[in-house]
Formats: sequence, C-alpha cells, structure tokens
Amino acid sequence: MSSAAPILLTPGPLTTSARTRQAMLVDWGSWDERFNQLTASVCSQLLAILNGAATHHCVPLQGSGTFAVEAAIGTLVPRNGKVLVLINGAYGKRLAQICEVLGRDFSTFETAEDEPCSAADVDRLLHADPAITHVALIHCETSTGLLNPLPQIAQVVKEHGKRLIVDAMSSFGALPIDAREVPFDALIAASGKCLEGVPGMGFVFAEKHALGAAQGNCHSLALDLFEQHEYMARTGQWRFTPPTHVVAALHEALLQYHEDGGLPARQRRYANNCQVLLDGMAELGLRSFLPAAIQAPIIVTFHAPTDPRYQFKAFYERVKAKGFILYPGKLTEVDTFRVGCIGHVDAAEMRAAVAAIAQALHAMQVLDI
Amino acid sequence: MSSAAPILLTPGPLTTSARTRQAMLVDWGSWDERFNQLTASVCSQLLAILNGAATHHCVPLQGSGTFAVEAAIGTLVPRNGKVLVLINGAYGKRLAQICEVLGRDFSTFETAEDEPCSAADVDRLLHADPAITHVALIHCETSTGLLNPLPQIAQVVKEHGKRLIVDAMSSFGALPIDAREVPFDALIAASGKCLEGVPGMGFVFAEKHALGAAQGNCHSLALDLFEQHEYMARTGQWRFTPPTHVVAALHEALLQYHEDGGLPARQRRYANNCQVLLDGMAELGLRSFLPAAIQAPIIVTFHAPTDPRYQFKAFYERVKAKGFILYPGKLTEVDTFRVGCIGHVDAAEMRAAVAAIAQALHAMQVLDI
Repeated sequence: MSSAAPILLTPGPLTTSARTRQAMLVDWGSWDERFNQLTASVCSQLLAILNGAATHHCVPLQGSGTFAVEAAIGTLVPRNGKVLVLINGAYGKRLAQICEVLGRDFSTFETAEDEPCSAADVDRLLHADPAITHVALIHCETSTGLLNPLPQIAQVVKEHGKRLIVDAMSSFGALPIDAREVPFDALIAASGKCLEGVPGMGFVFAEKHALGAAQGNCHSLALDLFEQHEYMARTGQWRFTPPTHVVAALHEALLQYHEDGGLPARQRRYANNCQVLLDGMAELGLRSFLPAAIQAPIIVTFHAPTDPRYQFKAFYERVKAKGFILYPGKLTEVDTFRVGCIGHVDAAEMRAAVAAIAQALHAMQVLDI
Repeated sequence: MSSAAPILLTPGPLTTSARTRQAMLVDWGSWDERFNQLTASVCSQLLAILNGAATHHCVPLQGSGTFAVEAAIGTLVPRNGKVLVLINGAYGKRLAQICEVLGRDFSTFETAEDEPCSAADVDRLLHADPAITHVALIHCETSTGLLNPLPQIAQVVKEHGKRLIVDAMSSFGALPIDAREVPFDALIAASGKCLEGVPGMGFVFAEKHALGAAQGNCHSLALDLFEQHEYMARTGQWRFTPPTHVVAALHEALLQYHEDGGLPARQRRYANNCQVLLDGMAELGLRSFLPAAIQAPIIVTFHAPTDPRYQFKAFYERVKAKGFILYPGKLTEVDTFRVGCIGHVDAAEMRAAVAAIAQALHAMQVLDI
C-alpha cells in the first residue's frame, strides 16, 4: 500500500491512503448544499456501520475524540445523574476526570491494566448503588490494547434500567458493534482512527429518545450535542464552522471502507496485521503485555527490553529513520512501548516494521530482551 | 491566483492556495518531534503577527473558532467574575450566550447593527457597574462587516483596571493589532480566516499573568486553556489529538503570509478586494449596508434588490454556477446578502464575481435594485 513516509504505527493519527488525503485538495463552502450532502452522507454511512439508523442519531462534532466524549457525558448525563466509570487504563481515568470537571457525581471501579472489567462486577456495583444512572466504559483501552466485554456489560446495564456511554474511539469500524443487539445511550468515536480518516472531528451515536430529552443538560455551548443535532436536523449545516477538509477526507475514507469490504474486511486486515506483528516480535524475543484473549487487534503493548543499552528515545529515532513511527508506552509501573496495527497498512508494512525494530535493537547492541 | 473552483467569497472557510492544501498530503505523528516543531513554529509565527511574544502565550485549540472563544471565557473569567458583553450583531450575541451557558454573570450593551460600540459607552458602563471584571468585544462583526474601535475600547477598559476579551476571528492577520499598544487578556482567532489556512483549529493569545492565574476556572476538560498551555509548555505536544493536517496547512499558509509581505500586504490586498467589490456593485446599483467609515475590508453586506423576481436561493445558485459562492445575510430586519473579500483571491476574482452577479441578476430579470 502506498502512503507518505514515515508510516505511523500509532493509534491515531495514523497512516491514511493517498486518495483520502487528496480529498482535502478542494475547498468547500460550509453553507453550501454540496457540503451539507457530504455531511449527511458521512453520518448515514457511520450509522450503517453499527446498524443504528433506526435507534440512534449520529452527531458529528469538531475537535478531537475527547471533545466528543466530554460532549456525550455533558449532554446525556443530567446534572443530577451519577456515573459509574469503569477503569483499566488512562482513557478510563479520563472519563472520570471529565465527570469531575463537569461536576457530575460519579464513582469509579478500577481493575488492573491487564484485566477487563466483567459484567458480573457491573451487576454487583449497580446492585450496591441505586443512585447510579449511567455507566461509562472504554471499549478498547488504547493505553494497552485491552478489549473490555462491551456486549455483556451493555446487557447488564440494560437489565438494571441504567444507561450506557461507550468510548469506542479506537475500536469503532474495526470491531463489530451492533446497535440492534448492544443497547447504549451514546457511543463515541473519531475520524482519525479505524475509519482511516484524518484527525479533527469526533462523532457520537446518541440514542434518539435520550438525545431528545437532553435539552439544557450541557455545561458548554460548543459541546452541546442536543443543540448540535437540532441545528443540523433543521438546516443540514453544522452549528459552528466545520473542519470542511477533515469531513471531506472522512467521506472519502468511508467510500474506501465500503469498497474494501466494510467492517469484516477491516477487522480481518487489522487482525492479520496484529498477528504478523505478534509473531514477528515473538521471534525477536519481545513479549506482549496482554494475553491473547483480551488483546484487541488495534495496538499492542510490548515489554521494553531489559538490557540497559535500550532507551526508548534512541530506539524510536532509529526505527523512525527506517520509516516507521512507534508509540511510547502509557503504563505507570511497567516499562513498555506500543505498536499500532491500524491505518492504511497491511502485513507487508508490519513485517517491514518488525525488521526495522530488529535492526534498531541490533545496532543499539540490545541483547537482553 | 489559482485555486479549486468554485471560489468561496465567504468569511471562512474560504479559498486557500493550492500550496496550503498540498501541505495536507502528508500524515504526521502527533507525538513526533517534527510535528511538535510544526506546532511551535505556528505559535511563534502567530505571536509575531501581533508583537505578543513578550506578553502573551499562544494557545492553540482543536475545533472551530467558537470553541476557542468559549475556552477563553471559561478559562480566563473566574467563576465569580462578571462580563460586560458589547453587542452589535450575531457574534456579539454569541458571546453573551456563552456566558449564559457557562453560568458566568454578565450584562449586555447593544448598539444597532450599523453602529460601532464607542469607548465613551464602555467608560460610562464601567463607571455604572463596578462588579464588572471583564469586557468582551467582537473586533470585526462578521454579521455585517462592521469594525468596532478596539484600541480605544481597550484603553478605557485598562484605565478602569478591567480585563478585555476580544473575538478577532475575522480580523486577525488582516487588520493591525499590536499587543504592545492594545492591552487585552485574550484575543481569539482561527485557522480558516484571514491567515488563509483551512478550518479546524482556533487559537487564543492569552496574557501570561492572566493565564497563569486561571487554573481551575474552566468548566470543561477539553476547553481548558490553562491545562492546554501547561501541557504543551511541558511536553511540546497537544494535550489531546491535534488536527495534524489542519496544523500543517496553517503552517504552510503562514509561510506564504510572510513571503507575501505579512500583515501590510494582506491588509492591502483585502482592502483592494473590498474597494473593487464596492465599486463594481455600486455600478450595478447594489448598495452596501454599512457606511465606508465602519466597513472592515473583510466581508460586505449588500441590500437585496427590491425587485420581487429576486430570491436569494436562485441568485446564489446562478452565481455559484459561474464559479463563486456568496454568503446569505444575517440581519433580522433587513433583507441582505454578503460577499467576502478575504481568502486567496485578488482584484481579478472580485471583478469576475461582480460580473457573475450582474449576469445572474440580468438572467433573473431583476430590474429594481
């Protein structure tokens, strides 16, 4: 696959196709009917990916994915609501931080960074605290690459009559989520992840009744998803200036997503990328942090070599010089680094990346892996 | 000047240069040193435009300009502050709406849509209400194209020992603002306006002491400029995923801005665009809404023809078919339309736009102008 060098093996921004980037070579009038059609097409394509058109609205939002997560919590959790935040990494902690800054009551449940939250835990926690109105969960925790059991947790939340907010930033589009089977009030993702667009906008799939009842909840003008949706439904336009080129790139990326075979094909390619990476790294003696059963094919955390000649920064620069950008670890207690499996890359790039890593370690005389 | 058709005669998004758009053909790692350098270069170039490096920080923010305005108010106005909002159009009203949603106490002072706010008014209002801590002002009110007297108002605000927040969205880069002479706590603009980048990020020039004292003020995690700046100062990176391609486009647009002669050249070109437009439209009998003395060379509001055969939508489509995208009016009481003077366009495009407008009106048999 062709792409501008270096190749980004990171969890987003990631490597996009030349065709996606070329879609940014045109300027669009944000008030113009043709741009409105582009936005509408993006939203309906996104809804189709999770079979959500009957039950959910797709509300696009300017900014990074975190802006959309904050918008979902601020808009959908009433000011007197209480959120149970499930945490096993940095992005789960960020959900709790958002609740804190927004002044929404919340409690947290934290498992180890290599331990998914279980539906049984959620069941127990919801029994214990009836004040909880919403549960917030990271689907794929990008800190490690860990996959939490979304369908099982969603079912328990529903049985308790509570509402679910899912940060699916790094899984949406690559791992199946079916809104007809997995009940949620909000599921959030962004342009620059598994859909292989460029970064600059997020989107929230908001359950229609929940969104309809959310007027006046939000703490922010810009992040108010009720108003964002209401304005777009009425005018076809974004409420405030949209990132027109980012929207155009996402539209082009979605066309390629469908041409390539949609979610099953994307999932297959990423799973293959992940397996090629894991196999190649295992041959070098590099151990992955997570057991295979809870490893999502999105990003892999590897233990850093124990050899004192290993330093992440020098290692990173050497691998980059060979055309691949890696990602630092995000664990507090274990020295790690991360390699993404997502973006416009396939097995050939993953093999080349492993070769670059081998050469870098060799040149650094890192022997103790 | 070459650009992708149609040409946008709108207040942003606007027509950019091919070179600016081509800067988006590369994917950037948001953690990578090269991207950090790009961000740092953008910020220092922006600060240089208003001679602000000694007194202000430049804090870039994901999202549209309104996100940055909300961030500035939320971060810099303490929760017990009170804002005097000066209004003469839709964007002034939006400042008040932001204060309302954020729960900041505020009062408004509204003049007619063709009447700038005066420094004498501000002096009187500040005398009358000592509870006011901040004054918020739109520099160029894009609803009409009206220019408010920023230096005079800033002086009065300073004499009262109060703080000033300036929305300079559609003036920054084209109209001179010197931070050494015009005191302000925050001045806000965005990528896709007079700097001729693409939309997707805003930036706030925040006075160093005011920003340093703003920890914990903000109502939002994503929009907290104190945290955004603190993180960037510490790591060189954006706190949350940046719109990498938008940043790269702005960087390229700034290089061209300086090569072209900086602010004086930009101001001259826009002023010339504006004059060519006004002259050409006057020949067609189309009257501008504002008197010349308060007309900024950014966007011009024209009275709609009185002929019943004139309908904005049909007119818009006919002019668009000839390669120019106009902008609807935003006045409540008078029927108008708007034509922007900004973007990668010069007198030739303005003359061609006037010709397209003449042909459209002729084809619609609009005789009563």
